[in-house]
Amino acid sequence: MNITILGSGSWGSALAKVLSDNQHQVTIWGIDPHVVDEINHQHTNSHYLKDFKLNDEIKATGNLEEAVAKADVILFAVPTQAIRKVAQQINILLVKKEAKPLIIHVSKGLEQSSHLRISQVIQESIDPAFYKGIVVLSGPSHAEEVAREDLTTVTAASDFLALAEIVQDLFMNHYFRVYTNTDVIGVELGAALKNIIALGAGILHGLGYGDNAKAALITRGLAEISRLGVRLGADPLTFLGLSGVGDLIVTCTSPHSRNWQAGNLLAKGLTVQEVTEEVQMVVEGIFTCRAAYELSQQYRVEMPITNGLYQVLYQGADVKEEVVQLMTRSGKQEASLAQHNENVNAEKGK
Amino acid sequence: MNITILGSGSWGSALAKVLSDNQHQVTIWGIDPHVVDEINHQHTNSHYLKDFKLNDEIKATGNLEEAVAKADVILFAVPTQAIRKVAQQINILLVKKEAKPLIIHVSKGLEQSSHLRISQVIQESIDPAFYKGIVVLSGPSHAEEVAREDLTTVTAASDFLALAEIVQDLFMNHYFRVYTNTDVIGVELGAALKNIIALGAGILHGLGYGDNAKAALITRGLAEISRLGVRLGADPLTFLGLSGVGDLIVTCTSPHSRNWQAGNLLAKGLTVQEVTEEVQMVVEGIFTCRAAYELSQQYRVEMPITNGLYQVLYQGADVKEEVVQLMTRSGKQEASLAQHNENVNAEKGK
Repeated sequence: MNITILGSGSWGSALAKVLSDNQHQVTIWGIDPHVVDEINHQHTNSHYLKDFKLNDEIKATGNLEEAVAKADVILFAVPTQAIRKVAQQINILLVKKEAKPLIIHVSKGLEQSSHLRISQVIQESIDPAFYKGIVVLSGPSHAEEVAREDLTTVTAASDFLALAEIVQDLFMNHYFRVYTNTDVIGVELGAALKNIIALGAGILHGLGYGDNAKAALITRGLAEISRLGVRLGADPLTFLGLSGVGDLIVTCTSPHSRNWQAGNLLAKGLTVQEVTEEVQMVVEGIFTCRAAYELSQQYRVEMPITNGLYQVLYQGADVKEEVVQLMTRSGKQEASLAQHNENVNAEKGK
Repeated sequence: MNITILGSGSWGSALAKVLSDNQHQVTIWGIDPHVVDEINHQHTNSHYLKDFKLNDEIKATGNLEEAVAKADVILFAVPTQAIRKVAQQINILLVKKEAKPLIIHVSKGLEQSSHLRISQVIQESIDPAFYKGIVVLSGPSHAEEVAREDLTTVTAASDFLALAEIVQDLFMNHYFRVYTNTDVIGVELGAALKNIIALGAGILHGLGYGDNAKAALITRGLAEISRLGVRLGADPLTFLGLSGVGDLIVTCTSPHSRNWQAGNLLAKGLTVQEVTEEVQMVVEGIFTCRAAYELSQQYRVEMPITNGLYQVLYQGADVKEEVVQLMTRSGKQEASLAQHNENVNAEKGK
């Protein structure tokens, strides 16, 4: 298959390798001419993936029209806040394309202005007559590890199981394993919201908290992700899966994660702007935190971690004080399925 | 309150500190006279908790009758396979005791011979007329971190919420936070079964796998824990809580964990016996794996990680081969609530 990857960052490049290893024709579209040039001539992408050699067959281009023309599959791997702009350009290009491509996206976040999930932004921006459907690919997957063929397992989710299975077939090989799921809402929300908790885990680390405290934060984080997710229509069990708890664990326990790094720097006293400059890549959690905070207000969902981080990131609150307040809240009862079903029924009755 | 802790290991000692900090009178019962002596005279327990000073008010004794006589609360902190024997001794002592004590247990495992959970073993061994009820306390809690007052958050579970709330009040302070839950089955199974997955995570580490693979193992581990748990009557959402995913994360990602250490040594080629000698403390996961394997066969629940580990621990299978087989199983569909409810209804219909 001809597969075009939109975005020349670390994740797009690592996935290009997987697809090329599986004998697909891969084209990477990027906006930075230096990166495009480096991929085409040195077969490396040194800023995003150190010590990594891309397969010679992978081509890069800065020309979106050329990138899309022959694509059977278009894979979005651009930062969340750029999805709408790129999708609108794709919409124009697809008008004149005969064969409908399948769309995959691998970005993790919520659009800040609209609070929409990425597949919703794509649906709003591209005429549904122009493509076969959308599949989201998500899970615990540091790009660096995929690049060196460390075993990685992810989820492909679509409203239509058959489309998720096509994506499963495209990617599956001995080091990259794909499960399917039909809960797009849950998979996208798990992916987006975990970055908020990763910022929090980085903060705890930076402030010297131990493993017990971090595990509690991750668990309470998973609970608040699930609460918002279920309120927005997700299946609660999706948060027990690879794109939920799996991705949450890898992002919160590994210093590879940019969001974790950003949290760690916040704890050391750097401002949000200094942190963004220091990390040198997009810190999705900073944007997603604002969108999730606003959603939690709109839908009246209790999200203490998101709220605390919002106060730090956007309201100038002191990071240490917020953490102490958060971690010493009075004890409560844990969630049960009976409560969940009660809430869902109450919601339906409205 | 007068609280007697049965067991002088690391966790019993750390909890003694929490309770003593909260102004309770704490007595530790232990079978090793050297440890009893050390606690009473040096106020330390150096084999189990290095560089740790126990409060002077904490007393230790080797005399079970004396330990139980004035106890308002009896807390079991002995290894799982010793629970029945100690409980039977307690039963005899409680015959002549007027005031009924509350029973708490903090052990994590399944009895190997009967496959029973710990509260079930206690219920079988002590006449229910002799005590107020049983509460299980569980969650992500390295004893070493509690001993140095690192923030820790756990769950107290009982069939009766009021009893769980009593235990919440006993333990709650600025560094030890307690949530309540009424799903005893789920809390006990989460605590027991996570040790199996921790052995697996240690093995992956020892074989050189990366963070993506470990996160996938933890996630698939959580799924199989939940599958067995739900089949045995647990609430699936309990596995999203502190005693489920919380404890799983801390045990699987921290080299503090004995089960993780044991797995790491298995991967290096040590035999089960050599591993047990090397770790020098009880490795609960080795026993629990066998019980869980047998339960999975009895109830026909798919538990690939438990099965693989059982083959390694008890059937002489090669650890590397089992891991490769496990990690490259063909991709499947992830679990959903709709499926869960279908399964529960099908089960009810039988």
